[in-house]
Amino acid sequence: MTGTPIPFVKGHGTGNDFVILSNLDGALDVTPALVAALCDRRRGLGGDGVLVVARTAEHPEVADQAGVAPYFMDYRNADGSLAQMCGNGARVFVAHLLEAGLVSSGRFQIATRGGVRRVRVSADDDSICVDMGPAEVLDRADIVVLPVDAPAGTAASPATGVLMPNPHAVVAVADVAAAGRLIEAPMVTPDEAFPEGVNVEFVRVIDPTHIQMRVFERGVGETLSCGTGACAAAVATLHLAGERPADQRVRVDVPGGTVHVVRRSGGEVELHGPAVLVARGTIDQSWWEAHV
Amino acid sequence: MTGTPIPFVKGHGTGNDFVILSNLDGALDVTPALVAALCDRRRGLGGDGVLVVARTAEHPEVADQAGVAPYFMDYRNADGSLAQMCGNGARVFVAHLLEAGLVSSGRFQIATRGGVRRVRVSADDDSICVDMGPAEVLDRADIVVLPVDAPAGTAASPATGVLMPNPHAVVAVADVAAAGRLIEAPMVTPDEAFPEGVNVEFVRVIDPTHIQMRVFERGVGETLSCGTGACAAAVATLHLAGERPADQRVRVDVPGGTVHVVRRSGGEVELHGPAVLVARGTIDQSWWEAHV
Repeated sequence: MTGTPIPFVKGHGTGNDFVILSNLDGALDVTPALVAALCDRRRGLGGDGVLVVARTAEHPEVADQAGVAPYFMDYRNADGSLAQMCGNGARVFVAHLLEAGLVSSGRFQIATRGGVRRVRVSADDDSICVDMGPAEVLDRADIVVLPVDAPAGTAASPATGVLMPNPHAVVAVADVAAAGRLIEAPMVTPDEAFPEGVNVEFVRVIDPTHIQMRVFERGVGETLSCGTGACAAAVATLHLAGERPADQRVRVDVPGGTVHVVRRSGGEVELHGPAVLVARGTIDQSWWEAHV
Repeated sequence: MTGTPIPFVKGHGTGNDFVILSNLDGALDVTPALVAALCDRRRGLGGDGVLVVARTAEHPEVADQAGVAPYFMDYRNADGSLAQMCGNGARVFVAHLLEAGLVSSGRFQIATRGGVRRVRVSADDDSICVDMGPAEVLDRADIVVLPVDAPAGTAASPATGVLMPNPHAVVAVADVAAAGRLIEAPMVTPDEAFPEGVNVEFVRVIDPTHIQMRVFERGVGETLSCGTGACAAAVATLHLAGERPADQRVRVDVPGGTVHVVRRSGGEVELHGPAVLVARGTIDQSWWEAHV
């Protein structure tokens, strides 16, 4: 090992996992190539993405949020691209801010490329709640989904389109296993409903307050959990059940655990769930220099 | 974080990755459940296995090796089961012993469940050589392999059986892509040739001193690299080329990088390759206690 090692933390929220880097002094050059190398599950540390802790005021893209949210969740996808927001990642980010002593209260706001997000930590069970913004249910009845790898004879199923604001198609199924192995993206039609692609949730409704879900994330594949997907699935379920406009809480069982979604009567959606910090340490400077 | 955190190192050899734990004082209770949790790529640290550094003399199963090899590579598969030996893991283990200052010379021996292994570090390029023991080429011409996911019309191909001593079926192909996506184990017949299952290597022979390989590991799936697989592929290639009995060196390109296999005139096989220590740190005691 040569040079100065780079501190990191590894954590996950319902199986969505992240490498956290602290860049409060702005000294780290977190390039797309470095993010991809860090997220490499065999040659790096492994993760669904990287959460960079930055000072909001020092990043022009979010500096207008600095007055209320001093810390910026500079989130990067595993391929190195920028992302606006990640619900499961936000919980892990919040757990890290608390553990590192950067915030002292369990109720504060963080800056993201998707705007300021309110967060709070439950005193009861340490679960973390993140304000996910409003959901929009698409007013169209022609969306259908067909899993590529579903058992022979499976028909395309009607789906509810939801913007969180990223696009989702939510399909009600009697058994989430009916979606097959999900090794390829399900076919969603019509194409014009989702010109930028779509995340697909297969949802078994146990009752309108408890659903089970599998998700195929656009550009990623099946994942253990997807924060916006859980929100979209809960909102679509409440929509189909005609549940409005009072506050509604939905338990969402995902392959990586359980989250809870609260749809407020005003339309705002909150995501509640666990965050686990698994390990912390330092990345070899020589490895970093080879990948930056 | 509560209690005493547990130190770890993360490293890889040609994309075969490992969590290294030090248990020199015997205080850690490394249970199968804990190994599986550590190797979980989303909820743990992630790895193809765990390399526990232990004192040979304190483990009855290897204590007879203590006179020549003070450190025992107590290797565990990602599912928590015990393993005899892992060629790529041995390089990472050696890199850690050197980096931790546990050995002072670049030429020493380590204890494994498969017996004492000689290792040495090249002064030229920091590559690490591990003695893999003798290879045995099976004397039968009836072994054939058919990839399950190969393009339509692909015929079963003849294979060379090699024991390293774990079983391998080595298939020569014009293009390693011909093996398809390898999402399921290739069909190997006759069954009685490998009663305990078999690892399958698809090998493109560039010349008898340079091959390209993909591997499907028994019980695991396609991997970026397999140390005994590289050895078996090189030995089978030399066997088919009629190259004997002088020392022969074969370059093996695997998806995760490049290793070199040396078959000594006496039949011993050596595996040479890189080892990378990516990061080090501590595992939260509370996480550990929840999974042990």
